[in-house]
Amino acid sequence: MRPIAITVGDPAGIGPEIALKAVRDPEVLACCAPVLVGHRALLARVADRLGLSVPDVVVEPALRLDAASIEPGIVSAAAGAAGAAAVELAIDGCRDGRFAAMVTCPLNKRALAMAGVPFPGHTELLAARCGVRGEVMMLYDEAIAVALVTVHQGLATVAAALEPARIVATGRLLAQALARLRGRPARLAVLGFNPHAGEGGLFGDEERAIAPAVYELLQLGIDAEGPLPPDTAFTPANRERFDGYVCMYHDQGLIPFKALAFAEGVNVTLGLPITRTSVDHGTAFDIAWQGVADHRNLVAAIRLAARLAT
Amino acid sequence: MRPIAITVGDPAGIGPEIALKAVRDPEVLACCAPVLVGHRALLARVADRLGLSVPDVVVEPALRLDAASIEPGIVSAAAGAAGAAAVELAIDGCRDGRFAAMVTCPLNKRALAMAGVPFPGHTELLAARCGVRGEVMMLYDEAIAVALVTVHQGLATVAAALEPARIVATGRLLAQALARLRGRPARLAVLGFNPHAGEGGLFGDEERAIAPAVYELLQLGIDAEGPLPPDTAFTPANRERFDGYVCMYHDQGLIPFKALAFAEGVNVTLGLPITRTSVDHGTAFDIAWQGVADHRNLVAAIRLAARLAT
Repeated sequence: MRPIAITVGDPAGIGPEIALKAVRDPEVLACCAPVLVGHRALLARVADRLGLSVPDVVVEPALRLDAASIEPGIVSAAAGAAGAAAVELAIDGCRDGRFAAMVTCPLNKRALAMAGVPFPGHTELLAARCGVRGEVMMLYDEAIAVALVTVHQGLATVAAALEPARIVATGRLLAQALARLRGRPARLAVLGFNPHAGEGGLFGDEERAIAPAVYELLQLGIDAEGPLPPDTAFTPANRERFDGYVCMYHDQGLIPFKALAFAEGVNVTLGLPITRTSVDHGTAFDIAWQGVADHRNLVAAIRLAARLAT
Repeated sequence: MRPIAITVGDPAGIGPEIALKAVRDPEVLACCAPVLVGHRALLARVADRLGLSVPDVVVEPALRLDAASIEPGIVSAAAGAAGAAAVELAIDGCRDGRFAAMVTCPLNKRALAMAGVPFPGHTELLAARCGVRGEVMMLYDEAIAVALVTVHQGLATVAAALEPARIVATGRLLAQALARLRGRPARLAVLGFNPHAGEGGLFGDEERAIAPAVYELLQLGIDAEGPLPPDTAFTPANRERFDGYVCMYHDQGLIPFKALAFAEGVNVTLGLPITRTSVDHGTAFDIAWQGVADHRNLVAAIRLAARLAT
C-alpha cells in the first residue's frame, strides 16, 4: 500500500475530526496507507473530546503549536499557521517521494491571512511550491467530472480570459486525468459561453475563441466536441455520452456538479507534478469538534487520490 | 372541464404527432377539455400516416394551407405561416374567454422568418398581441422551478441588464405562480451573479444590484433569500428549502433545470393576461411524422396549464 498524506486543515474546523475518522475507515485502509500530517497534541485533544484515537504514525510540522490555544470555530493566526505548515510538509513529502499523493482538509482564508501566509488558499500555495503555473481545478464524481477554464473571477471578466491556449490546456489535463481514472480515452464536452452557444453569433461571439480550441484538442488526438449549448450539455442523455466537461466559468461547472454530486464530489488539482485531491467542502466552524462531521467526502477524496497516484 | 387550446406548432415538426397523441391521453382528459388548434387536413395527413385519429373538434385558422405541400422535416414559409396562425387564433380564444389557457408545440424560427412573421418566436408574438412588456420565462417541474431575469442575450451583456426593478418583477411573478401551484406562499432563492456571489466584492460587484431587489421582495411580503452563491444553491438540501429560483442569466437557471428535470420540464410565460405553457423541446425535424416522438412533455405542459388556469 502506498502512503498518502492527509493534512488536517485548519485545526479549529472539522478537519481534525474527519481526518481522525478517515484514517480508520476500511475503505481508506483498503486503498492506501494513510498518514496524518498535523500537530499530534491538537489531534489528541480533538480525539479525547470525541472518543476517537490518534494513530501511531503522525507526521508533525516543525512549527510549534500550543494546542491548548486553539478553540473550535475560532479563526486564529495560530490555527492558520498550523494548517499551512501541514500542507507545506505534505508537499515536501510528495515531491521527495515519501508520499504517493496528498489529500487536504479545508483551510480558512482569514486565518491564513492573519498568520501572514502569503497565499490565499491551497491552490496558490501548491502552485508556488511546485513551481508551476496553469494548474486546473477539476471536480470529480463517478456521475460527473468538470474542469474549469476560469475559476475565482467576476463573471463579467471571464469573456476576456477565454484564450484558446487556456481552453486547450484545460482540456488536455482533464483528458489525461480521466483516461487514468477510467482506463480508456476520455470523451470531452467543451462548453460554449453564451446561451445556445451563441446561436451562430446572435447572442455573443465568445464561441469564436472556443471553436479553435476544440479543433486543436482533436488535432492532439483528444475526443472533444463543442462548443456545446451549455444548458442541454448536462442532461442525463449527454452525461452518458461525455466523460468530462471543459467549463468556461466557475458556476457553469459547479452548478451542475453540486446539483448532481454533492456528497461524493472531490476537488482535484491538475497540472501539478504531484497528485493532490481535496474535500469539496469548507471548515464548517459551526460544527467543529462536535463529533457530527461527516467524513465520507474525505474518504472519497483519499480513494480518488489513490487511483490517480497509481 | 375547461377548454385548453393546444397549438400544433410547425406542422413539419413533431408538433402534429404529439398533439394528436396528447388529446387522447387519459391524464390530459382528466384535467381539461383539450382543443386542437391547427389545420385539419394537415392533422389528418399525419394521423393517417401514423395510425392515429383526428378528434371531432379542431379549431382551424382562417389562413389557407395546402396540406399536401408540407413535408416532414422541411423548413418552409407555408409551415411557418400555418404555425403562427394557430398561435394567433389560440391567443384570441384565450383573450375572449373561449379557452382557459393555451399550450404550444414548437415553432421553427427560420420558417417564421421565411413566412414574413414579424416575431422570432412565441414569446414575442404573445407579448405583442397581449400588449405587455416584461413577460418572464419560468421553467417548472415538481423538482425544480426557475425564472430568468435575462434570457437570450450574450453572457457578457448580462451584468449591465441586472436592474433591481427587473429582478423584483421576476421574483414577484415567480412567487405568484408558485403560490397558485403549491397553494401556499413560496420561498424564493435569489441567486448572485458571480462565483460565491462575489465573495464580498472580491469577484465582481453585480450583487450590489441584486441585494436591494431581495430587500424589496421582502418588503412586498415575499419570502426571498439572496443573493446566494449560485453553485451551492441547487444542492439537494437547498432544493428542499426553496420552491423556486430567480436566476440572473439563461444558463444559470437552465443548466440545473435540464440536468434535473428534462422530460417533465415545462416552459411557462409569466406576466401575460392569459395562461400559456409550452413544451420544453424543439421541433425535432429529424424524427417528424415517424411515430416515435414522445408526447409526455406536452402532457406535462397541458396539466400544468390546467393547474395555472384554475
